[in-house]
Amino acid sequence: MEEWQSAMKNFETAHGGITAPRGFRACGVQAGIKERGLDLALVVSDRPAVIAGTFTTNRVEAAPVKVSRSRMSGGIARAVVANSGCANACTGAEGLEDARRMALKVSNGLGVAEETVFVCSTGCIGTRLPMDRIEPAIGEAVKALSEEGADSAARAIMTTDTVDKQVAVKFSVEGRPVHIGGMAKGAGMIEPNMATLLGFLATDAAVDCGALRRCLSSAVAASFNRITVDGDQSTNDTVLFMANGVAGNAALDEKHSDWPVFNSAVGYVTEKLAMKIVRDGEGASKLVHVTVRGARTPEDAEKAARAVCRSLLVRTSWHGGDPNWGRVIAAVGCSGAEVREDLVEIRYDDTVAVRNGVAVEEMRLDALKRVLSGDSFSVCVDLHRGDGSFGILTCDCSEEYVRINSEYAT
Amino acid sequence: MEEWQSAMKNFETAHGGITAPRGFRACGVQAGIKERGLDLALVVSDRPAVIAGTFTTNRVEAAPVKVSRSRMSGGIARAVVANSGCANACTGAEGLEDARRMALKVSNGLGVAEETVFVCSTGCIGTRLPMDRIEPAIGEAVKALSEEGADSAARAIMTTDTVDKQVAVKFSVEGRPVHIGGMAKGAGMIEPNMATLLGFLATDAAVDCGALRRCLSSAVAASFNRITVDGDQSTNDTVLFMANGVAGNAALDEKHSDWPVFNSAVGYVTEKLAMKIVRDGEGASKLVHVTVRGARTPEDAEKAARAVCRSLLVRTSWHGGDPNWGRVIAAVGCSGAEVREDLVEIRYDDTVAVRNGVAVEEMRLDALKRVLSGDSFSVCVDLHRGDGSFGILTCDCSEEYVRINSEYAT
Repeated sequence: MEEWQSAMKNFETAHGGITAPRGFRACGVQAGIKERGLDLALVVSDRPAVIAGTFTTNRVEAAPVKVSRSRMSGGIARAVVANSGCANACTGAEGLEDARRMALKVSNGLGVAEETVFVCSTGCIGTRLPMDRIEPAIGEAVKALSEEGADSAARAIMTTDTVDKQVAVKFSVEGRPVHIGGMAKGAGMIEPNMATLLGFLATDAAVDCGALRRCLSSAVAASFNRITVDGDQSTNDTVLFMANGVAGNAALDEKHSDWPVFNSAVGYVTEKLAMKIVRDGEGASKLVHVTVRGARTPEDAEKAARAVCRSLLVRTSWHGGDPNWGRVIAAVGCSGAEVREDLVEIRYDDTVAVRNGVAVEEMRLDALKRVLSGDSFSVCVDLHRGDGSFGILTCDCSEEYVRINSEYAT
Repeated sequence: MEEWQSAMKNFETAHGGITAPRGFRACGVQAGIKERGLDLALVVSDRPAVIAGTFTTNRVEAAPVKVSRSRMSGGIARAVVANSGCANACTGAEGLEDARRMALKVSNGLGVAEETVFVCSTGCIGTRLPMDRIEPAIGEAVKALSEEGADSAARAIMTTDTVDKQVAVKFSVEGRPVHIGGMAKGAGMIEPNMATLLGFLATDAAVDCGALRRCLSSAVAASFNRITVDGDQSTNDTVLFMANGVAGNAALDEKHSDWPVFNSAVGYVTEKLAMKIVRDGEGASKLVHVTVRGARTPEDAEKAARAVCRSLLVRTSWHGGDPNWGRVIAAVGCSGAEVREDLVEIRYDDTVAVRNGVAVEEMRLDALKRVLSGDSFSVCVDLHRGDGSFGILTCDCSEEYVRINSEYAT
């Protein structure tokens, strides 16, 4: 997870979010899908860009996921259009047609090929998009595109997010300045619904299509796929990455001498966006890094770590600042991972609470409570059975989460 | 799940809980393990009884589970001693010795063999039992045993339970009156901790040991193993069933002509106790019966049903009385079960909300909201892929649940 940290000296953070890379313009407009605020974002590459994407593995897929996934084979993107306030999921053939019409309207407005327009939605499942409002809004968006449009685009994809989420970095490839910019939205809806994750990245580097896809897949596996707010997996999750080559470098791939810095920079951007999503999780007040080490296999480590993060008893105790390690060890014990109770060790930051499966005698409860009173801490479970390890970033579960998600949505 | 219903005409409900069967005495006393109230229960069979038991599958097992499980091979029980307020889990070799000493004290007090005494605990993980208070309390309990002691025993195993949970039935075997009585405790702790389930059953029928075990296993699979409050599995879960043969019948087994009525009565008692546990789940205000039908296999049906019950977004929407079927279909979609979105049907009680994966046109939102405003309703998902089905009883998730479990426990 922290692989990029050693390479961080090779790049610096930059301003400008998704439009930090040259040759990208963006904007956010108000289509009236949500009750208030911006709700339609458009990101355009002035040149044909190579595209990579990862999509939800939910067997129930939103219409825009179906459309965008089918267009990945072309490998070229000119634009991404995304709306908040309606997921366009479980909307049947009509919903699929709506998603295609959104892309078509963008394609006509920009004068680019229809298959190079990708579409995303986030919001309530089961209702149709208000196309009569969306189509004119797309017309406006095409006119409003700007190299300074990153902020409004980042706000237009927000739902119950309380802050927009943007990251950009700058570094050199073949001595030329290159940028990666990204934006994301996190957990929840103004009309509470699925914790939908959307992430968009852009770079002005030239990147080989296959290399871009491998790079994005591993970056997503180490970032967005290692966070959890409530364990619910959306029908709409999508991460898209466009590389337009405006920097003029020879296309980057794994053999290029500047590949490591590019790869690290992508790791940095995706991890920072992922962290922002957890930090802004619905009702969250604490960021918790859960690591399981010493598992028999990496798969066992992942099972155990996910079980800890999935336990509502564990996450509510964090909310109360309660170092309730009994709930952690019980969650690990029924995770399906191979566990020998008398070998288990549990640490909160640097304070050991449990050794050999029992509370350490010298344990200072006040020291543990101090760790858990912070707004961010780590929980490390060492199973002492092997070398497998896995880390996840998560948050506590508060009354506020329940309140947000109990309100009428339908 | 409702197998016993057709057989119900063959038995009637009775008073007296765990001591409804003849030859059983019980009591609850105050040992001072909890801050207030009864916290130590003793149930004794005047004659050696055949015993069956099921235990947690958590890899982290409480000391009393280890002790009781190892004594099952003997097959004979005279007493069960159970305390609330401390789980005696993750307490190492000393905790194991404490559990054995609890049983030994009972054995000495009653003058019965040590291996015929079974022990259970429920409460906070990781702290030792206050043996200096428990041992004298066991002495008192031995003196306080009574055929009318079921109520105090049922209260002594309560933690955050708000009501005690008892069921008893009466029927005939070979024309002789026979009883089954049971008590259970549910989700939560006065010092909030693991949602520990303890269940105790007794009968004055004579039952073959193997038949009793097979009968209990399938009854538990259809009752206690089909409820969920928060998806967390305790280190202490235990169900024990004693049959002392005071009724004088020929030992019941699957070939006995009265086996069906006995088996149905056990099904009835375990299901009623399970239902009482969910109804009294921490912070719960609604009882929800989730069924998945039409799955490719029974395993797929179970996966999908458990995914719905595990979804915090689904359970919080129920709390708000919100017919948010989008969350239900999304949970089913990522359950791992084979799902074809365009075949999915979802019903709330008798009202169809979704057909072929989309909202039914004639859907009356007000009718759905009326269903969900009740304190009990059913959600049925039909996958239309095969014959597999599975049902689970669960409850909603409220702010109150989070409040209860966020408070300091350690």
